[in-house]
Amino acid sequence: MMENNEELESLREQVRTITGDIMASVHRRIELAKKIGEIKERLGIRVKDERVEQEVRTKVLALADEIGMDQGFALRLLNVLLQESENVQAEKRQQPQKQTHLAIFMKAKQLEGEGKKIIHMEVGEPDYSPPAVVGESLLESFELGRYHYTDTRGIPALREAIAKAAVVAEDRLIITPGGRFAVFSAIVSLLKAGQELIVIEPAWPAYKECGDFVGATTRVLKTSLDDNWTPDTDKLQEMINPATRMIVLNYPNNPTGRVLGRKTMEKIVSIAKDHDLYLLSDEVYADYVFNGSFGSVLEYDYDKSIMVSSFSKRFAMTGFRVGYAVASKDVIAAMTKVQAVGITSVAEPMQRAALAAIGNDVSDNIGTVKERIDYICGRLKEISLRFAEPEGAMYVYPELEGIDDITLVERLLEKGVAVAPGSGFGDSYRQFVRISACQPIEVLGKGLDVMAQVIREGG
Amino acid sequence: MMENNEELESLREQVRTITGDIMASVHRRIELAKKIGEIKERLGIRVKDERVEQEVRTKVLALADEIGMDQGFALRLLNVLLQESENVQAEKRQQPQKQTHLAIFMKAKQLEGEGKKIIHMEVGEPDYSPPAVVGESLLESFELGRYHYTDTRGIPALREAIAKAAVVAEDRLIITPGGRFAVFSAIVSLLKAGQELIVIEPAWPAYKECGDFVGATTRVLKTSLDDNWTPDTDKLQEMINPATRMIVLNYPNNPTGRVLGRKTMEKIVSIAKDHDLYLLSDEVYADYVFNGSFGSVLEYDYDKSIMVSSFSKRFAMTGFRVGYAVASKDVIAAMTKVQAVGITSVAEPMQRAALAAIGNDVSDNIGTVKERIDYICGRLKEISLRFAEPEGAMYVYPELEGIDDITLVERLLEKGVAVAPGSGFGDSYRQFVRISACQPIEVLGKGLDVMAQVIREGG
Repeated sequence: MMENNEELESLREQVRTITGDIMASVHRRIELAKKIGEIKERLGIRVKDERVEQEVRTKVLALADEIGMDQGFALRLLNVLLQESENVQAEKRQQPQKQTHLAIFMKAKQLEGEGKKIIHMEVGEPDYSPPAVVGESLLESFELGRYHYTDTRGIPALREAIAKAAVVAEDRLIITPGGRFAVFSAIVSLLKAGQELIVIEPAWPAYKECGDFVGATTRVLKTSLDDNWTPDTDKLQEMINPATRMIVLNYPNNPTGRVLGRKTMEKIVSIAKDHDLYLLSDEVYADYVFNGSFGSVLEYDYDKSIMVSSFSKRFAMTGFRVGYAVASKDVIAAMTKVQAVGITSVAEPMQRAALAAIGNDVSDNIGTVKERIDYICGRLKEISLRFAEPEGAMYVYPELEGIDDITLVERLLEKGVAVAPGSGFGDSYRQFVRISACQPIEVLGKGLDVMAQVIREGG
Repeated sequence: MMENNEELESLREQVRTITGDIMASVHRRIELAKKIGEIKERLGIRVKDERVEQEVRTKVLALADEIGMDQGFALRLLNVLLQESENVQAEKRQQPQKQTHLAIFMKAKQLEGEGKKIIHMEVGEPDYSPPAVVGESLLESFELGRYHYTDTRGIPALREAIAKAAVVAEDRLIITPGGRFAVFSAIVSLLKAGQELIVIEPAWPAYKECGDFVGATTRVLKTSLDDNWTPDTDKLQEMINPATRMIVLNYPNNPTGRVLGRKTMEKIVSIAKDHDLYLLSDEVYADYVFNGSFGSVLEYDYDKSIMVSSFSKRFAMTGFRVGYAVASKDVIAAMTKVQAVGITSVAEPMQRAALAAIGNDVSDNIGTVKERIDYICGRLKEISLRFAEPEGAMYVYPELEGIDDITLVERLLEKGVAVAPGSGFGDSYRQFVRISACQPIEVLGKGLDVMAQVIREGG
């Protein structure tokens, strides 16, 4: 007993000494980072240098492996150091605010609040109505007193109905407040600070935002109009390192309308399997496929896949905020924990509205969107903009000429037309805009008239 | 230019070397922690030793001061190290799953799903109905097509109505999916890993859960039944260090029913001001005050205060999931960013339902809860349990004798009665349970009969 106590005291003394050493070294590291920041400013170099950070990360991983240190913890520690370095380097510099489709939507809403008429071609929000039974279910929920806390994973009836349709066990499913929260809870529960996810751009900005939220690093696999927005799976393979934890897919794609062929999909699944990576497949546009078929990630039966879907686009229920995810039991448990901390459960009347919507025929809506997409494509050809013919989703993503996206978006907004800037889907896409097919053709026509005019004048 | 580049490379080389040194030292520190853990296990000492941690913290602060390192960052780094030490020490020991009121609620729900009848005295969910206009608003929302994405901060009409009632500018407000998400977005947007928040226990577990979520450390200020659950402001003062960022208040208190007097409240606000700390005041029970008045944190006009409230308890609208926060414009902007990443916006029909509820007279509900609280108190006196007479909220928190909370909770659940274990509100409260006044007196009576019987048998 006595010996144990003495040993304990001696060990604690050693811990104190070494803690002091660590602090001193970290301090020296920060001083060096400050000096680097000063030189970078003189040279006009960006504070964040992905290549240098990647080098440091690789070195740290190798070192951790060598000394038998937990790699996850090593990366977490490194991340704390890198963040502080970046902070001291960026202290004096201005950070530009990124313009996403959501930011433009908020601006458009504000203008509407001030009395201005806006043609909404920026947001992926159907203008048609949910099935009528959804309205009935709302009143019924109130009359039956169905407005209480529910199981964090959702009401059993809704879980069972979705599980049946997706042909999965009910315990592999969670109901979320919109597909977005499914993406959020998957990424924040499965990735730690310092780990990495791979996103194929152009992409909905939420994936990177969720990664940033937990201090994870987003690696970008760029695709291009010239390659018909097809991801290069060899490049994907090369991007993977010991810190990689997840690949994110989104097909039918927002914003390009691309649908992946089976061979590419198989290749990506096999890469994920080989490296034991989570495969998050955001399939909220799965109903909007115009030619041929779309294969869900669930068909590949990969236990680290997470399929995200929602009632927003399928049933035109964006503002009900009901989505869901299908994954392994373990992943669902991790996501459920995040949901319990963040929101307790999804509003019960909204869950019951989603339940009422299931089974209603919405195939007319797909026809409607397809007709509008064709119309937009026709008009864009008239003004000679390049784009890939969408195979699905509800957007066209044309390339601009002689004008950048933000300039065009701002000029259009002044004239009462809202479109989404291409750069909101990736820094490399300042020459694109996204046009939504969520308005009647007459309205789209007016918006495109204005756009054609502005491009003629500004181009 | 050339010289700058060479200097940059040389500095980077130094950074690489020192990063390696840091990793090696940290690894040695962890190895020492493991050894300490082994001895602690032999000696039967708890892994977490607040006194030792406080000593280390003081030393690190002194050292940081000496070498000119930012004290906040030094403590953040130390907390990352301490957390990892604790992890490796606790690795081999059993981590008991904490039983919170929410966990018991989920179990009770499951039992109900299996056909068992349950008396719910575990959850703070009113059994009375929301105002009738709420039901009408649901149908109206559908008919008017008000089911779309809204501004992330909420629909203007609801924001304005709340702002008017709270007498604050509309831009100091955000509508959230329940008060819980307001707490979540405040804590995760304002605290970084390694920083600290102070929670006064017993407390709703969400504050610590949100802190854990971002890797922040929760310091606990314990209160006791003997002191009528009054926080000791001198102790509060002593707990503050350069890593402290936030104090969390929750009055009327869940689970004790305590309401703070103006003098204590003034003292806490002044401590927060002196140390430039955020003051998160969860006031979801503000309507349920039985004698005297309750003073909101907003009355103190402190720009780092965050007031959280909700429609759940006031209007019996738990399952609608609508809450809100009032804070400075900057804090609201930070919380809005989290909300945009996580959920886009709150379901529009739920926001409109909340709007419909505003202005309805719900004073009868307060009388109902008070009557039930009195009834519960009377019954508890009959079986000689000690408790503090609640001044507000909807709970009684009696001290058990001769039986611990989990044993009692489990025995009761077997007999169809759900109550919340006291330890769900803090590790030190295994001798308490929380009883909710959210059922009619006849139902509460049956539940308390069973509880009295089990205590007689088990005590």
